[in-house]
Amino acid sequence: MDFGPALAEFSREISALDLSPLWERVARMTPGSAAVPALWKYRQLRPYLMRATELITKKQAERRVLMLENPKLRGTTFISQSLFTGLQIILPGEIAPSHRHSPGALRFIVEGEGAYTAVEGERTMMSPGDFVVTPNWTWHDHGNLGSGPVVWMDGLDTPIAALFGAMFREDHPQDTHPLTRKDGDALARFGNTLLPVDYKGNGPGGSTPLLIYPYARTREALMQMAHSTDPDPVCGHKLRYAHPGTGGHPFPTMAVFMQMLPAGFAGKAARSTESVVYNVVEGRGRVSIGESRFDFEPHDIFVVPPWEPCRFDAPAECVLFSYSDRAAQEALGFLREKAEA
Amino acid sequence: MDFGPALAEFSREISALDLSPLWERVARMTPGSAAVPALWKYRQLRPYLMRATELITKKQAERRVLMLENPKLRGTTFISQSLFTGLQIILPGEIAPSHRHSPGALRFIVEGEGAYTAVEGERTMMSPGDFVVTPNWTWHDHGNLGSGPVVWMDGLDTPIAALFGAMFREDHPQDTHPLTRKDGDALARFGNTLLPVDYKGNGPGGSTPLLIYPYARTREALMQMAHSTDPDPVCGHKLRYAHPGTGGHPFPTMAVFMQMLPAGFAGKAARSTESVVYNVVEGRGRVSIGESRFDFEPHDIFVVPPWEPCRFDAPAECVLFSYSDRAAQEALGFLREKAEA
Amino acid sequence: MDFGPALAEFSREISALDLSPLWERVARMTPGSAAVPALWKYRQLRPYLMRATELITKKQAERRVLMLENPKLRGTTFISQSLFTGLQIILPGEIAPSHRHSPGALRFIVEGEGAYTAVEGERTMMSPGDFVVTPNWTWHDHGNLGSGPVVWMDGLDTPIAALFGAMFREDHPQDTHPLTRKDGDALARFGNTLLPVDYKGNGPGGSTPLLIYPYARTREALMQMAHSTDPDPVCGHKLRYAHPGTGGHPFPTMAVFMQMLPAGFAGKAARSTESVVYNVVEGRGRVSIGESRFDFEPHDIFVVPPWEPCRFDAPAECVLFSYSDRAAQEALGFLREKAEA
Amino acid sequence: MDFGPALAEFSREISALDLSPLWERVARMTPGSAAVPALWKYRQLRPYLMRATELITKKQAERRVLMLENPKLRGTTFISQSLFTGLQIILPGEIAPSHRHSPGALRFIVEGEGAYTAVEGERTMMSPGDFVVTPNWTWHDHGNLGSGPVVWMDGLDTPIAALFGAMFREDHPQDTHPLTRKDGDALARFGNTLLPVDYKGNGPGGSTPLLIYPYARTREALMQMAHSTDPDPVCGHKLRYAHPGTGGHPFPTMAVFMQMLPAGFAGKAARSTESVVYNVVEGRGRVSIGESRFDFEPHDIFVVPPWEPCRFDAPAECVLFSYSDRAAQEALGFLREKAEA
Repeated sequence: MDFGPALAEFSREISALDLSPLWERVARMTPGSAAVPALWKYRQLRPYLMRATELITKKQAERRVLMLENPKLRGTTFISQSLFTGLQIILPGEIAPSHRHSPGALRFIVEGEGAYTAVEGERTMMSPGDFVVTPNWTWHDHGNLGSGPVVWMDGLDTPIAALFGAMFREDHPQDTHPLTRKDGDALARFGNTLLPVDYKGNGPGGSTPLLIYPYARTREALMQMAHSTDPDPVCGHKLRYAHPGTGGHPFPTMAVFMQMLPAGFAGKAARSTESVVYNVVEGRGRVSIGESRFDFEPHDIFVVPPWEPCRFDAPAECVLFSYSDRAAQEALGFLREKAEA
Repeated sequence: MDFGPALAEFSREISALDLSPLWERVARMTPGSAAVPALWKYRQLRPYLMRATELITKKQAERRVLMLENPKLRGTTFISQSLFTGLQIILPGEIAPSHRHSPGALRFIVEGEGAYTAVEGERTMMSPGDFVVTPNWTWHDHGNLGSGPVVWMDGLDTPIAALFGAMFREDHPQDTHPLTRKDGDALARFGNTLLPVDYKGNGPGGSTPLLIYPYARTREALMQMAHSTDPDPVCGHKLRYAHPGTGGHPFPTMAVFMQMLPAGFAGKAARSTESVVYNVVEGRGRVSIGESRFDFEPHDIFVVPPWEPCRFDAPAECVLFSYSDRAAQEALGFLREKAEA
Repeated sequence: MDFGPALAEFSREISALDLSPLWERVARMTPGSAAVPALWKYRQLRPYLMRATELITKKQAERRVLMLENPKLRGTTFISQSLFTGLQIILPGEIAPSHRHSPGALRFIVEGEGAYTAVEGERTMMSPGDFVVTPNWTWHDHGNLGSGPVVWMDGLDTPIAALFGAMFREDHPQDTHPLTRKDGDALARFGNTLLPVDYKGNGPGGSTPLLIYPYARTREALMQMAHSTDPDPVCGHKLRYAHPGTGGHPFPTMAVFMQMLPAGFAGKAARSTESVVYNVVEGRGRVSIGESRFDFEPHDIFVVPPWEPCRFDAPAECVLFSYSDRAAQEALGFLREKAEA
Repeated sequence: MDFGPALAEFSREISALDLSPLWERVARMTPGSAAVPALWKYRQLRPYLMRATELITKKQAERRVLMLENPKLRGTTFISQSLFTGLQIILPGEIAPSHRHSPGALRFIVEGEGAYTAVEGERTMMSPGDFVVTPNWTWHDHGNLGSGPVVWMDGLDTPIAALFGAMFREDHPQDTHPLTRKDGDALARFGNTLLPVDYKGNGPGGSTPLLIYPYARTREALMQMAHSTDPDPVCGHKLRYAHPGTGGHPFPTMAVFMQMLPAGFAGKAARSTESVVYNVVEGRGRVSIGESRFDFEPHDIFVVPPWEPCRFDAPAECVLFSYSDRAAQEALGFLREKAEA
């Protein structure tokens, strides 16, 4: 629209009052975001992770993280408008000192054995494929008791916390906060569809009290499920990780999933307002996201930005881990999905 | 109170109008019920179960149940004012034909291998110590594919359904309703703190979609928990079975528990408005309920009526299964508990 | 079934062990209850209420209640298997001393002005048509500051509390417990679809914090609703009273309703597993319940037992207040409804 | 930290792979946002609103909105990182054509009578002080049936929808979508702590079905509340608008409030992670936000960015309307508050 000189003058005047005219604003209420589809080849990243162990000393181990930045969001440190993704490597004998922060965090173990995450006084040993939880504002530290490097993916809701201005962080006075429970305690209490009789829950906005969802169990559940039912035409066989005390998502902001695409799967495309980050656990396949096509293999990471049509092809059986901002979007009423015709 | 002849006459008159004077009613609003503490020795019951298999033919197998009636509720068929308990025995090759009813039912397997419960198209094999679910108004049948008799305890909320006049029952046109899922499907989908992505829940009043809670897992969880924490002074180490989609109880009316009393446990007494039925899984001990003392051993069943002080002694480690009307009482705001001084 | 002498002997033997054979039990799992449809004419009851004021002194005012007993539940004091209904009359200057009990109670004001209910330190003045709340285990007393007698209907969930053995009652050390809030405080805080910013709710099993739902507002809402939509074929225009903090029912056990039948309404029949007690507020009409037909006029009270088909005819506009055990049945998964063909 | 040339080279290399090193990132996890405290004087804005009616024709009325941009967020159109605020003026006979969008919107009426908002087939007349609801993705249009201009404040959660990429907008084929309910229907059904018996709710992420919260009621509630209790030291007497079907906030993202500061109120300072937008309804006073001090009078608008200490002084009684992103922050677990010592 052309608004003529009177309007231009008007706009100038009101600008001094921190006002801006809606009518000059080109209406742009369309779904999608500035982020673009992208895939990171683990084969390419791994050598840099290894080099980082030489460049970044043991003392800095906590910050030895490569952040996967969306090509169109460079400078933000974010993989999508609402999610953060990093790759962290920790060497035998190292610890990442104890701290806590208001963003919630997940760890998805990529390779290596012997590392642990300690959360609020309980240590959890981690193996490849495990999904490990650090609820927001809980003390946590990491360490590697094994004999080789351990790599995991960090997934955080930092951009959401940042939008609200609700970013808090605190360092623990000690490098490793004191352990008050035996290893495996949370899994015993919360991982068997049983709850302690005195469990009170943690209300709206709370995270799962189960600190680890071991891959062995998740994989077995997927495989049994695959024997019993036909795959969904869009997502194959797909389970979401649950908060045992509510049946909701493990984080108030982030949903977390594991899915299996059976051999020969040629999926239908679908869109969602979710931002989704995938980490390939097993198998090789191809994903189409909007106009992009990517071949993937184990440990590759890719991001599906909101409202980009996404579809999968799996010549052989694949297992894919993913996390998204679906928990937040469901809670806030924004989630929308659409299968393509 | 003495109310004199005028009031007596008044009462007579209004009685014809189906009215009754509150002032004649002796105020009796005290906690507790007509039921009394009682224990049934499995050693005593078992021979009768065996004889019942001779007396009651295969065709009547569905109704080959001995009902444990509270000594002060004879004629009601109930073990407490709010709960039903039965012992059912099924021989190799028998089936209990398919039907459904509005009371919800649990099975707790006492002895024998090879029996199954089929619920809504899915068959679940049962082993001793397993807790098996029949949600209200679901088609179900039982059978024994093994080589020996199988005994289980039935727990139902029949008295609660009866109070409301909400008793429905229907027989399936076929003895065994058709199977539409593979064995173990519910356990894969709902038993691993994961949920199918398309799971919608079943709202208030719904029951757990998980059809079996295997003893092996429950026992392991209890034992790990026992390593990590001190026992509760009243109940030792105690877990409640959870609805994986809500974190609530498996039934809208009934809570279900497994607890471990460590060797040497001398519990404190506590009261609750719950009616609780216990089934001893492992170990020998003693329970005091009100003025009663009972020694118990595996498979014994006992009932704790509301507001009777109850305490446990366990010279050696014991494992106790139990179910109660706590789910209903919590939902309706009636639950009250009090540890004794 | 005839079970022969061997089974008879078996039954005798196990009876000594407090066991009873299911196979002897005639299967009777059918909906409905022992209660029958009944209507109490207020014109008939009122003279007895007045006489009761002479017979029962001021000191006994608290217990000056005529209980409406179901004709087939005589001796129970209950109008249905799950509900209690009484009519209470209080004279000017009288008080019903302060006490609390675990059953929840509603008051529905039938006639007279100037009486109040005080609950937990707040006094609520009551007028005909008002629905007044006494949540379970709250201190409450009543008084009449007016110049004539005041009559209200008491509705309680006593039979449900009794089933669970969860009956508690306590007298306050003082006749009237101390007032700590101004009159009308709860209505200001909770009666305008607004909530105090520090309101925390009262969890599952909690009752409404709104102590009075004035008839003037309820009536106006019904009338406006009637202008905007066609009546429901079964119940006309019907609203349920809501817990402002949850949108649920005002009591964990009892749902409460007001409905308007437009002039000329000839309703369809429907069944429900609810027990419902009606109190006629305005208008004359007819109700069919099962095989019974009753003409009703203002202040008449009638009961619809579970699963009895019920239908209404209203030659002129009628307004009906009612309460039922629907809240409990929804929470426990027992509610079932069926419109007749 | 100085990371030397090797690290610089490393950073350059990985940048080509869309990777960025966390260790170079200066740790900045501190609460607060880029937005600054700001107040807009209605006296200054009003003339521009009037001039806008001359410059922007009737046909463009829908977009005749002055957007209040935070001085440190110029170019974003937002008043805080998470909220949008606009002032809209509509002349007699004008309509703002029907459309719908995924952000939720509130209208707070500033001056004028005779305008309406129509939502999903129901028209709601608006008066100064009323809070009017446009739930997300509902058809809505506005019109002015009165004889003078009407001004209202628009409050939207656009920045939150934008973060997730969940922005949708659609124009209705007709300027005014068809009316299917009588005026005042929603208020009758949902505004009296009553709910239609067939109301099913709208689940997580849903908005209030009550389309208007009239000022007359809200004001009366505040005044009665003020008679009964002492004011809170931070916020005086404060009520939150409630979703009648849940007791939660009216929008899944936005909380809405009205508060009264009694004459002579000298409040204590407090911080919150909320972004809050205030609109002064009655009275004059002063607010301190962080380092800023603002005098306010009726219709002034001011914003409190997250974690800025805020305190009020009210020489005479004041009434303040406000809305914030608290609903989203509670749901997502980010909300944190802290009263100053």
